Order: sequence, then structure tokens, then C-alpha cells
Amino acid sequence: MRIKPLITALALLSPCYAQSAEFTLTDAASNTYLEHWKIDNQQLGLNSKTPFSIEKMRLHGGKQEGVDVIIINNGELEVTLIPTRGMGIFNVKKDGKRILGWNSPVKEIVNPVYIDLESRNGLGWLDGFNEMMVRCGYEWTGHPGVDDNGQLLSLHGRAQNTPSSLIKVNISEQAPYTITVEGQLSEKTFKKANLVTQTAFSITPGENRFSIHDVLTNQADYKDEYQIIYHSNYGQPILEQGAKVYAAASEISPFNDYAKQGLAYWQTYLGPTKNYDEMVFNLKPIADANGNSLAVLHNKAANLGVEMQFNTHQLPVLTLWKNTDTLQQGYVTGIEPGTSYAYNTKFQRPLGLVPTINPGESKHFDLTYTVLDSKSAVTNAVKAVNDLLGNNSVKQVSTPLVDLTKAE
Amino acid sequence: MRIKPLITALALLSPCYAQSAEFTLTDAASNTYLEHWKIDNQQLGLNSKTPFSIEKMRLHGGKQEGVDVIIINNGELEVTLIPTRGMGIFNVKKDGKRILGWNSPVKEIVNPVYIDLESRNGLGWLDGFNEMMVRCGYEWTGHPGVDDNGQLLSLHGRAQNTPSSLIKVNISEQAPYTITVEGQLSEKTFKKANLVTQTAFSITPGENRFSIHDVLTNQADYKDEYQIIYHSNYGQPILEQGAKVYAAASEISPFNDYAKQGLAYWQTYLGPTKNYDEMVFNLKPIADANGNSLAVLHNKAANLGVEMQFNTHQLPVLTLWKNTDTLQQGYVTGIEPGTSYAYNTKFQRPLGLVPTINPGESKHFDLTYTVLDSKSAVTNAVKAVNDLLGNNSVKQVSTPLVDLTKAE
Amino acid sequence: MRIKPLITALALLSPCYAQSAEFTLTDAASNTYLEHWKIDNQQLGLNSKTPFSIEKMRLHGGKQEGVDVIIINNGELEVTLIPTRGMGIFNVKKDGKRILGWNSPVKEIVNPVYIDLESRNGLGWLDGFNEMMVRCGYEWTGHPGVDDNGQLLSLHGRAQNTPSSLIKVNISEQAPYTITVEGQLSEKTFKKANLVTQTAFSITPGENRFSIHDVLTNQADYKDEYQIIYHSNYGQPILEQGAKVYAAASEISPFNDYAKQGLAYWQTYLGPTKNYDEMVFNLKPIADANGNSLAVLHNKAANLGVEMQFNTHQLPVLTLWKNTDTLQQGYVTGIEPGTSYAYNTKFQRPLGLVPTINPGESKHFDLTYTVLDSKSAVTNAVKAVNDLLGNNSVKQVSTPLVDLTKAE
Repeated sequence: MRIKPLITALALLSPCYAQSAEFTLTDAASNTYLEHWKIDNQQLGLNSKTPFSIEKMRLHGGKQEGVDVIIINNGELEVTLIPTRGMGIFNVKKDGKRILGWNSPVKEIVNPVYIDLESRNGLGWLDGFNEMMVRCGYEWTGHPGVDDNGQLLSLHGRAQNTPSSLIKVNISEQAPYTITVEGQLSEKTFKKANLVTQTAFSITPGENRFSIHDVLTNQADYKDEYQIIYHSNYGQPILEQGAKVYAAASEISPFNDYAKQGLAYWQTYLGPTKNYDEMVFNLKPIADANGNSLAVLHNKAANLGVEMQFNTHQLPVLTLWKNTDTLQQGYVTGIEPGTSYAYNTKFQRPLGLVPTINPGESKHFDLTYTVLDSKSAVTNAVKAVNDLLGNNSVKQVSTPLVDLTKAE
Repeated sequence: MRIKPLITALALLSPCYAQSAEFTLTDAASNTYLEHWKIDNQQLGLNSKTPFSIEKMRLHGGKQEGVDVIIINNGELEVTLIPTRGMGIFNVKKDGKRILGWNSPVKEIVNPVYIDLESRNGLGWLDGFNEMMVRCGYEWTGHPGVDDNGQLLSLHGRAQNTPSSLIKVNISEQAPYTITVEGQLSEKTFKKANLVTQTAFSITPGENRFSIHDVLTNQADYKDEYQIIYHSNYGQPILEQGAKVYAAASEISPFNDYAKQGLAYWQTYLGPTKNYDEMVFNLKPIADANGNSLAVLHNKAANLGVEMQFNTHQLPVLTLWKNTDTLQQGYVTGIEPGTSYAYNTKFQRPLGLVPTINPGESKHFDLTYTVLDSKSAVTNAVKAVNDLLGNNSVKQVSTPLVDLTKAE
Repeated sequence: MRIKPLITALALLSPCYAQSAEFTLTDAASNTYLEHWKIDNQQLGLNSKTPFSIEKMRLHGGKQEGVDVIIINNGELEVTLIPTRGMGIFNVKKDGKRILGWNSPVKEIVNPVYIDLESRNGLGWLDGFNEMMVRCGYEWTGHPGVDDNGQLLSLHGRAQNTPSSLIKVNISEQAPYTITVEGQLSEKTFKKANLVTQTAFSITPGENRFSIHDVLTNQADYKDEYQIIYHSNYGQPILEQGAKVYAAASEISPFNDYAKQGLAYWQTYLGPTKNYDEMVFNLKPIADANGNSLAVLHNKAANLGVEMQFNTHQLPVLTLWKNTDTLQQGYVTGIEPGTSYAYNTKFQRPLGLVPTINPGESKHFDLTYTVLDSKSAVTNAVKAVNDLLGNNSVKQVSTPLVDLTKAE
């Protein structure tokens, strides 16, 4: 652990000196590890208008034995990150109550050591799925299936069940004292993959939003495929009967035959509905000149919601997952920007949705999540989506992109 | 950890107040964990005729790295439970020597993190099998095989390789100071299973018996199948050449063709016998008016044995597993009450032996194990079995319930 | 942990008394475990000409969470052993720089709890492969494939992903104060395998070499097959364009069709070469009257190298693995004495390369690795190989031992 001097004479004399407090809580390369750690703005001597704190702890018991979590409280939101599970976001609370996230049947934050991704024909990932934000990638993503080369690709890849090799916390010493938590996910298999993702989560004290800035690098000397879906999941209190979703998209189509019946109603949600299971839709996002696209989910009263901003140059497609089954089954919807849809990889190659990454090349993924906690915030966010749509509506196409009935 | 007041004024005034000392050693829900803990009757200030103690420790080295065990000494028996392995019973000692349990080739108490249940075509469970009592369930049980839906069901389910989410020790503060150890096994997979089993082990100081009280609850909103076998295993000193088994049953049949040759001799045991491998028999237990059935195993001299009591309303069938192979291979017999026999699930559905559990429904499983440590104790136990049989003998049926020769 | 008296009156009086300091750092059987431990010759009160030290530590972060390593510095070499990974040798340093070992794309020392050996059709072993010396065995070895009995045999067996049940350090109290580190690898699966390997690594202060003395015992009551390859891997600084390998062998043949083109150049190495992938050759070693055979690898200048001595009674065949692909892919060559080549087990049975081990029988494996750090050391080692060859050269046979093109 290294603590940079907070406000030093050197810093005052040298404006180029990065003025931040940096703490390395875990680093496999230097064998650094802290089991428990906490800091707040007072300990840092920072005169923040909004008090903030960052705490790292280890969980115990059942399948969460040995899981590390980081809880960041920026004075407005309390965000729980899971370094042991791919630096995913477990949930986000406001005023002590969860606002982003969902109630999965899986209650514990499951250590990947208890998960066999290839079990149940590649569905092992379901043993641990309960987060608000899951990285589905980067070697592959999508539904399980045997790829053209005979290898089983398990559901949604390996990143989320990869423990981060790094936990670094950085707090800017200049207002507004932005907090950044960095991680590192290695997907390294001799002769198969050499992908490293530097993850970054950033949040500013007093703000109602946070951002993800991930950088995937192919450290191999050969070109490789990659895929990623940022599987972002929302249940109560935002999701409820009458909740609505908006997306800046040119087109929407059902993932499979079952979803056809829900196409016309894609923007609205049912309450918990027995035997609903899940309906999935494929959207083609549209963006502003910089590639920025938006999706918004809000509750029935339109006074609570979440806005997701992502970049279509990085994440060109959007999956909408409506799992409005009963509460016990996991009442949840997923808004999932990605390089790819949720089909197995072999079905996405013909669609041009399995991009490649050159040796040494890096790919950036930037997303911003904003909690909408008032009628006006919701109204403005919906307006921003509509501004991107212009005078167009989202075209409904009734034929799935992939004919799964013909797939073996 | 919470220590309830032992003898308090409140308790004296309020007889409804549960007078017990309760210690939560592990609880995933509250992130409670104690690495090492011990208590005895003196520390509790309990004036027990028989001294007793309960100790919890963590094991290290090889594949038992990180395994938690609880050792309960009730003054007569010393029982080792394994919270990390489904709250199974490792063994039972008396006067410092093992009386219940067996010598498996697997010597370490294997942490499930080292086990891949689907390995060797679903035989991964065999990497850790060495306990006296193993819960084989609850999502499925039986021999491995691909189920009708195409999913490989690994040998004997997942419960035994599931770490308990809870370790709670409760000691009654009223004579006879019954000790209860509670656990919780979660079999939760999004869209697949939402089964939770509250396990309880109870023993009274000074007694030669102990009980299991498990409650399986389907926390899903859909009906589900379940199966359970209480795989109870005995080697030396009870098992030996000339040892005998008694069961209150109407009928016995061989599991497969190989076992046909052993049908006539089902009640007696060989000594360690090279190339014996294993013979398995299916029994149909009979019970008293309350559903209580009995099985007894005793040594050649009929002065040492074990009695198992179970309830046929809960566990309607009984498997007898005779593995009287050589000592190094694991000289052992299993007496296994269950909802099901040891066939793969797909073969048991047509037999009506794959029960279902409704949403929110709970199923109870109660077993009592009694150590028979004298000639009279053995005689009485055998008499109790014969009383249940009345004037009937166990009918020998030579045809297996399932024709495995026709199974692919 | 037990510290034997160092120099005692008893020892002076009784020359038969083994004078050594012995430290048990981990022992599953007695639940002994030390997280961190270090000793050196001064603490032992040993007047060694060359200072030495032994340190044991636990690693943290990413997939190396919970991995134990032992670092032995004998004054000349610094050797890192990995008890958590089959007591393999991670690497060997001299003057602070790695001299034996290689740069795998896999950077972390991966805890087996993160590895699913059967994943990717049996290639899970590749998730952790980065050591200088890997034990590929003992239940089976070789490329993955479904064996004749229908079981998938994963790449190179399970030993390297088995945590050692024992870590014992022994330092002789008599000059030259030889240091021995013992381990124990259990491959125990009920009804499947009961193999235990006592591993020993020994090194003498001030010397440029070290030895492996492994004893595999079949603790089952039935005969079993076994296989082992000592997969010994070298990259920079020894491996470079113009590096050479020498082996005392009667014959060499390509592993497969791809390797045919490299047969004529088997003794020389290319620099890092894109699209080279790997070429594998099968050699038939020859030995002196005691069975001792030799292989030597040295750099272009022939002033740096490694000599491997092994015994053909124990390890009758030798695999040469040339993986001179790019640096990022893992620029490395393997010199691999074994009972078997790298083919899947089913192809080696017809070749007579799947030996058996009787009940209770032990098999010994002894290898000595010598760092060659001068022109004369290299010259002498090459001369020793040539002495074994006598007037013969290694016969080049162009047809692979196994016709993999006919294998399904």
C-alpha cells in the first residue's frame, strides 16, 4: 500500500504533479493484500462539501467465503463493487435502500471457486448471477453452445467469474474529489487467449451518477476475437407494473419466436407475472455525432429511474431482457449494451457481431449510469432519448435476426 | 456471535422464554465468521451430569485447506460435522476410537473448491467421498447420467459439496442440555433451482444416539422435483465377516444383474474380499403407524452395532450398499433411506420415486442413529425390527426394478 | 512444527542419529499450517561457507489468491517451489535474474481452485501453465481425449493442480548442509485411483544444481496404470536463436505431420518466430549401465545452459517440445523425460508406454538439473552426452509413432 502525500509543498510548486491519494489494496504482481480497509474524506483531510467513504472487506460463509467487496459511499449513493467477481457492481443504494439492482434467487455473492462454468451444458454462470452490472465477456459472450471449433462456449464468458488481480483506489485531492476504483481482469490461457481488461469505476461525491471506463487489451501477438455485453439489471423499486423503457434505436426485433408476442409492448412492463419467464429483444441503437446513445428505464409514476449512456462506436448493439416473472424467480429487466447480442457466438459471426482485436490493440468501453430521482430528472432523460430519435420511432421488425428453430 | 443470557431473571419469570445459549459461528447473511471457537458445560455454567464440549476449527493442507469442522463431544460420543461439506457427519468416536464411519481411500476432508462434480462423466463426487453420513440431493440424486432434458446429472447431487451458509450452535440451559447444531444449504441457480435445506443435528449429553432434523423448502414460485438419499456408511469395527444387517422391509431386490448372486445372502457380510466391488439392493421399508421404520447393523459377536430410525412418509425407500471389497479400497456398507434408489433420475421417474415440492412447501426429514454398545442393546434393536416385520420375512425378488441392460 | 536439537550431546555420542533440523510447515494429517516462515543458516547456527535461506509465503490477488510458495536460496541459485501446484518448480534465478523458466502468457501462479481441468474439452490445464517444471501425471498424462472407457482424460493429468498435503523442510546439520523440501500429492478417488507421490526437492548450499526424488506408491489393492512426464521448460536467457539441444538418444521422430518439416533441424532453435506454434519430437533415450541419460540445452554462445540427468529405467522416453513462437505467446522449449510421450493415453497403450503399478508398489523418479554457467561447463556437459552416444548419431525417423491423421 502506498499513500501519496496529500497536499505537499512539491504539489504546490509543481501543478503537473497528479494530486491524488492512491491506495493499492490488492495487487497480485507485488503480492499486496489488505483484508479490511476503510477511508473517508476526513481521514484524507479533504474539505469535501459531501462526506464520502470507501471501505473494503472480505465476506465469509457459504459460497461467499473469501469474496472481497468494496463499498463506496459518495454521500448520495452507496455502490458495492465485487473485485472477486470481475469488479462487477452488486447494487446501488440511496438513503439506505437499494435503488439499482434486483433480487435474484441467488442471495450470496458467490466466489468463483464454487462455480463450474461448463456445468449444466455451459450454464454454470447462473449459479452466481445476482449483480446489477455484470461484464459478459471478453473472450466470448452469449448463450452457451458448441462453437464451430468444437469447444463449448459457456454462458456469457469468464470475466465475471475472474477475480480481479488489482484493487486500486484513487481519490483526487482537488474538488470535486473524484473517486476511482481500478481493477484488472486477466483472461489468459496458454495458446488460447491473452486478454487483459483494466477496469475503472468512477464517482464524484454528491453526484447521482457513476461511470465505467474499461480498457481491453490483446496482449497476444495474434489477432483475436472478443465480445462484451454490459449486462445491467434493474428490479424493484424502478421496475414495476407500468414501468417504461426508452431507447434511442432505429429498430427492435424479437430474439426468438417466444418474444414475438411481446414486440408491440416492448416499452412497457408487467408486474410480476407467473410463467412469463423471459422475453428478449434486439435493438439497433442510434447515437449523436460522437456515438453517444441513451436508454432510460423509469417507474410507473415517472419519478424514479435510471439512465444509461453508452457509445455505439464501442458497443454497437443493445439487448433488452424482460424477465418479469414472479418476485421469487427474479423480477428484473436487463438493459445491455454490447458488441453483440445474446446469441451463441457462432450465430453472431454471420451478423458481423464478433469483432476482432489486433495484437497490442486496446478497446475502450465507457458507460455512465445516472440515477433519476425526480419527475424532472426522468422527464429530461426521456426527452434526451427522444431528441436522439428525432422524428422517428423505433421500427418494429417481427423476424428474429437468427432463426433458432433451424439451429440444432 | 450472540450469547444469550444463561439463567436470567427474565427467564425465571417467563417460562415461555427459550432458555438456551445460542452461538452463531458462521452466517453468510450477516457476514459472521469465527475461525476457531470452543465451549464446554463448565464455561456455560451448566451443571451437567455428563461433561460436554463443542469445538469449531478450520483445517489446512492439501485438499482440506479451508474446511471447517465442528467436533461435538457429549461425554459418550464424539461427532465430527463438516459444515463445508453440506453439514455431513465425518465420523463418530467412542472412547477415542471410531465407531461409526469408515476408511475411504480418500483421507482428507476435501474442500468442494477442489471438486468438479461433472468430471469423469459426472463422478467428481467420488473425489471427496469419505463420510459416515452424506446428504445425496436435493436437486437430484443417484448415479450420473444425462437426463431426459439433455443435462448431465452428476453423481448424488450437489448438497454434500455445498458449504453451509450458517453454523449455529444451541445448547439448552435446562437438563438434559440438548445440543443442536444448525446449518443451511442453498441450492440456488437462477432459472433452475431454489431449494434451501435447514439442517439440524441434535444430541443430548450422556446419550448414545443423535438425530438429524432437516427441512427442505422450495423457495421458488414453481413446483420442482427433489430427491434425497441419506447415505449412511459403516466400516470397521461394526462391519466384519459375519456382521449382519436387519431391515423392516416387505421386499428386497437386486439393483442390477451383478447383485442377483448376492440376493440370498443379503443379510450377512463377507470380510474384506478382493474383486467383490459392490452389490446394491433395493428395499421397500415397512413402518409402524407413525411411519417409523428401522434398520440395524451389528458385528459378528452381536455386541456392537448401529440402529437407524427413519420415517417412510419422508423417506419411502431404502438402499443397501454392500462394498465389502478390500480394506484399502474402502470396506464399507451403506444403509441409505431415501426418497429414491440409486438409479439415475430418469429411471426413477417411471417408478414414482422423483417426488415434487410445491412453491413455498417444506419437506421434513428426521433420522435417529443409535450406537448399540452391548449385547442387550443389539438384541433389543433386532427385536424392534422383527416386531415391525411381524410374522413376515423380507420377500426376495430376483428381478431388478430397472433393467439397466436395456439402458443406453 | 518440530525443531530437532541442532548439535546435541546425544548426537555427538550417537553417530547414527540423523543430524538435521526438520520443520513441518504444512501437514494435512496433523492439521499443521504456517502462513509465513523463514529460516537461514545463521538462525540454525550452521557455519556454512555459503549462506542459505528458505522462506515460505502465501500469495494474494487475482487467481493466485491463497497460493503457497517456498523460495530456497542456496547462495548460488534461488528456486521457487509451488506446494499449491503439485510442488512444481516455478523458476530458478541466479544473481537475481531468472535463468531457468520462461515467460508464459499466464503471469499469475494460479490456484487450482480456479481451474476446471475438463474445460475446453480437457484443456483447462492451460489456464495455469507457466512453470519451469511441471509434473504431468500420475493417473494419466498427454493430450486430452476420450479414453477407451469413455472418460475424458484432461491434458497432462491432475498432479500439478493438486495442492501438496505436506510441506516439510529438512536441513542437514552436517556439511554441506543439504536442504530438502518434501511434499505429498494425493490422487485419490474412490473406486478410481489411490496414488500417492512423495515428492522431494534437494539442493546443497553453494552448488549450481538440484535434484528431484519422487516416489509414487499405489495404495490401492488393485494394479493400476500410471504415467508421468517431467515437463521441464526453458525460455530466455538460454533459449535464443542459435541455441542448441543435445540428447543421448538412439532415435528421434516427429510427433505429427507438422513436425516432419523440422526434423532435420531438431537440434537448433529459431528466435521468436510468428506462426511457428509448436513442434514436438519423440526421442528414444540411451543411457549408461545404470540407466542414466542426459540432455543438454545451451545458448548460442555456448556459455550458458542446463543439463538434465534422468534414468531410463524410470523414465524411458523423452519428448522435445519446441515452442519458438513469439515472446508474447510463450517462447519456450520443453525437455520432458517421461514414462510416456505426449499422445493421449489410448494411443500410448499399443506402444507399451502406459506402465502399470502393483498394489503397494512404489516407483522412483530421480532427476538432476544442473545450471551450466560457463563455456567449460557447457562443453563438458555436451561431451558427456556425446560419450553416451559413442560413435552413433541420433537416427532421424520421419514417420510419427502414431498416425494422428487416422485418429478420430
